[in-house]
Amino acid sequence: MCLSAFVAKTQSLKKIKLCDFVPSWQNQPKMKEIKLFCPATIANLSCGFDVLGLCLDNAGDEMIVRKVDQKGVRITKIVGADLPLETEKNVSGVAALAMLETLDELDFGFEIEIYKNIKAGSGIGSSAASSAGAVFGINELLGRPYSRKDLVQFAMQGEKLASGNAHADNVAPALLGAFTLVRSYSPLDIIRIDSPEELYATVVHPQIELKTSDARSVLKQNVSLKSAIMQWGNVGGLVAGLYTKDYELIGRSLHDEIVEPVRSVLIPGFDQIKQTAYENGALGSGISGSGPSIFALSKGKETAEKIAKAMSDVYEKMNLPYEIHVSKINPDGVRII
Amino acid sequence: MCLSAFVAKTQSLKKIKLCDFVPSWQNQPKMKEIKLFCPATIANLSCGFDVLGLCLDNAGDEMIVRKVDQKGVRITKIVGADLPLETEKNVSGVAALAMLETLDELDFGFEIEIYKNIKAGSGIGSSAASSAGAVFGINELLGRPYSRKDLVQFAMQGEKLASGNAHADNVAPALLGAFTLVRSYSPLDIIRIDSPEELYATVVHPQIELKTSDARSVLKQNVSLKSAIMQWGNVGGLVAGLYTKDYELIGRSLHDEIVEPVRSVLIPGFDQIKQTAYENGALGSGISGSGPSIFALSKGKETAEKIAKAMSDVYEKMNLPYEIHVSKINPDGVRII
Repeated sequence: MCLSAFVAKTQSLKKIKLCDFVPSWQNQPKMKEIKLFCPATIANLSCGFDVLGLCLDNAGDEMIVRKVDQKGVRITKIVGADLPLETEKNVSGVAALAMLETLDELDFGFEIEIYKNIKAGSGIGSSAASSAGAVFGINELLGRPYSRKDLVQFAMQGEKLASGNAHADNVAPALLGAFTLVRSYSPLDIIRIDSPEELYATVVHPQIELKTSDARSVLKQNVSLKSAIMQWGNVGGLVAGLYTKDYELIGRSLHDEIVEPVRSVLIPGFDQIKQTAYENGALGSGISGSGPSIFALSKGKETAEKIAKAMSDVYEKMNLPYEIHVSKINPDGVRII
Repeated sequence: MCLSAFVAKTQSLKKIKLCDFVPSWQNQPKMKEIKLFCPATIANLSCGFDVLGLCLDNAGDEMIVRKVDQKGVRITKIVGADLPLETEKNVSGVAALAMLETLDELDFGFEIEIYKNIKAGSGIGSSAASSAGAVFGINELLGRPYSRKDLVQFAMQGEKLASGNAHADNVAPALLGAFTLVRSYSPLDIIRIDSPEELYATVVHPQIELKTSDARSVLKQNVSLKSAIMQWGNVGGLVAGLYTKDYELIGRSLHDEIVEPVRSVLIPGFDQIKQTAYENGALGSGISGSGPSIFALSKGKETAEKIAKAMSDVYEKMNLPYEIHVSKINPDGVRII
C-alpha cells in the first residue's frame, strides 16, 4: 500500500518521504560503497531517431558511489577525462541532485568517483553513462526506493546539462539494458525490449570532434511525409524484428531516410565504413547517437569481429585514429561490479 | 526444390509455369466453386498512417469464385453495389488478371459473383475486400500455388484501379488477418502481427461521401521533424503493445500527430465520436482508412458494444444516417464459408 502510493507520487516528481516506507539500506547498514559498470549506449539506431537505443556490454565507465556522513553530493575524483568536479556542473552531480530533491532531506550524503573510459563527444553516451551510474548507485545505497525505470527521469537531467536537451534515448538503455523505445516524453513512456541473444554490435569511433550542436544544426526542421512514412514503417519493422528475433527483419529495418543522409557527411569515411560493414555480413549500420561513432549490428560475435577488422582497415588506410568496440547487447544496463 | 524456386521467381512477378510443380487442384478435381467471406479492414490506425492495418471479423462481403471451361475472368454478378461488371474495370477482375498473368496460360477460366455489404467509400476497405477475395479464391481453386502473403502484390493492383495508388494497407490485413505492417513497398515487405485475443473494434460509418482524393488532398507534403518523431515513437509503441498484449500501451500509442488533425475536419461529428469513445472505455480512436468511418479499439466485447451505443447516440442526435460494426479482430483474413 505505502509503496504503491509512493511510486505513484514519484511520477510527478513530488517530494516524498523516505520514512513513508522502510528503505532497505536501513536493513543493510554495512553497504556504504558500491562500484559500478556504467555502460556505453547507442542511440537513434537508424530509423529510430530520438526514440530507440541499445545498451553495450563491454564498453563503459566505472564509478564508485559512497555513502558518507557529510550531507549533499560531491564528485571527489574523475580519472580519464577533463570534466568539472563541481556537483552542479557535472552530469552525475546534477542527476543525483535531481533524484535527491524528490526525497526528504537525508542526514547523510554521497561521494562519487568517476573512471571514464567513454570519451566525451564520441556518440556512445558518455554523459548518459555517468548520469545513469550516479542515480543507480545512490538508489542502491538507499535500498532501491526507485525502480530502474523511475530513475530515467533523474538521469535525463544530467543529459540536459550536457546537451541542453533532457533526452532519454541514451540514459534509458543505460539504466534498463537491452533495447529501449522512448514512446513519449509527455508523459515519459519508456518501453524496454529484449534483445535477440545472438545480436552483437560493432562500434567504431573516429577520433574527430563532432559537437552535438553541429550534428543537430544540419537537421532540417521539416521532412517530407513520404520519407516520414518510410521511417515509421521501418521503426515498426525493427520493433517487430526484435520481438520475433528475426535478424533479417532487424537488418532490413535498419534504414534511415531522414537524418543519416544529412548528418553522415560530417563523419569522415562514413560511406566506406558502412559499405564494408555490409560486405562483411552486417545486418545494418548507421550513425551512433549524433556521431561521429558508427555502429553495425550483426548476428554472432564472429561476424561482429570480422566487421571490426574491416572497419579498422578503412581508418588505418585513412590514417585516422579510431577506437573500436565489439559487444553483445547488454541485457541489464548499469550493474554492480 | 521446385517450389522454392517458384516462390523466389514470384517475387519479381515473372511469368512462371504451373507445370513446374504439381498444382493440387489437379488432385482436387471436384472443387470447382468456393464461397468466400471477404473481410472489411481498418487501415492507418492513427499513428500507423499508410503502414498499419487490421482485419475485421464480422463486417465484409461475400464472393463466389467458380472454375469454368471458358478461359479468362468474368464478373458475372454484383449484388448490393453499382459497380462495373467489365473485368478490366472491376477491382476483382484486375487483381485476378494480375495474378493469372504470372502463370502460364490456363485452359480454363473463372467466374466471380460479388455480394457487397461494405459500401464503397466507407473507409473500411471495400475495394480491398473484393481484390483480396478474387485472388484468394482463384488461388484456392488452383491448389494454392501462392502463399497468402504472395497474393498481396496481385490484390494491390485492384487497389491501384480503385484509388490510383497500389497501396497494401487494406489488402494485406484482408489476406493475412490480424494486424499487418507494410514495412516497405520497394521491395514489398509485409509483417503480420497477431492480435491480443480480447481486442475488439467498433467502427461507425457516417453515410456521407468522402472521396479518397479529397481526403488525400488535405494532407501536407511536409511535416515537422518533431511531429514525425512523435509519430514513429507511437508506431514503435503500438507494435510493442501488440507483441506484449499490453492493451494500455496499445491505447497510449493510438495517437496521430500528423494526418488526423487535418483530415478529421472533413468528418462530421468526429471530435464528439472520438470523445464519447474514450468516455466509454476505448483504448484509442481515430479515422478508419481515409474516412469517413471512425474506429475505436477496446478490450472486450462489452466495452466495444457500449462504445457502439454511445457512437450511435451521437449520430442519432445529429440526425445523420450511419452504420455501425462491432467486431473482434479477425485472425485469419479472407476465408471459405
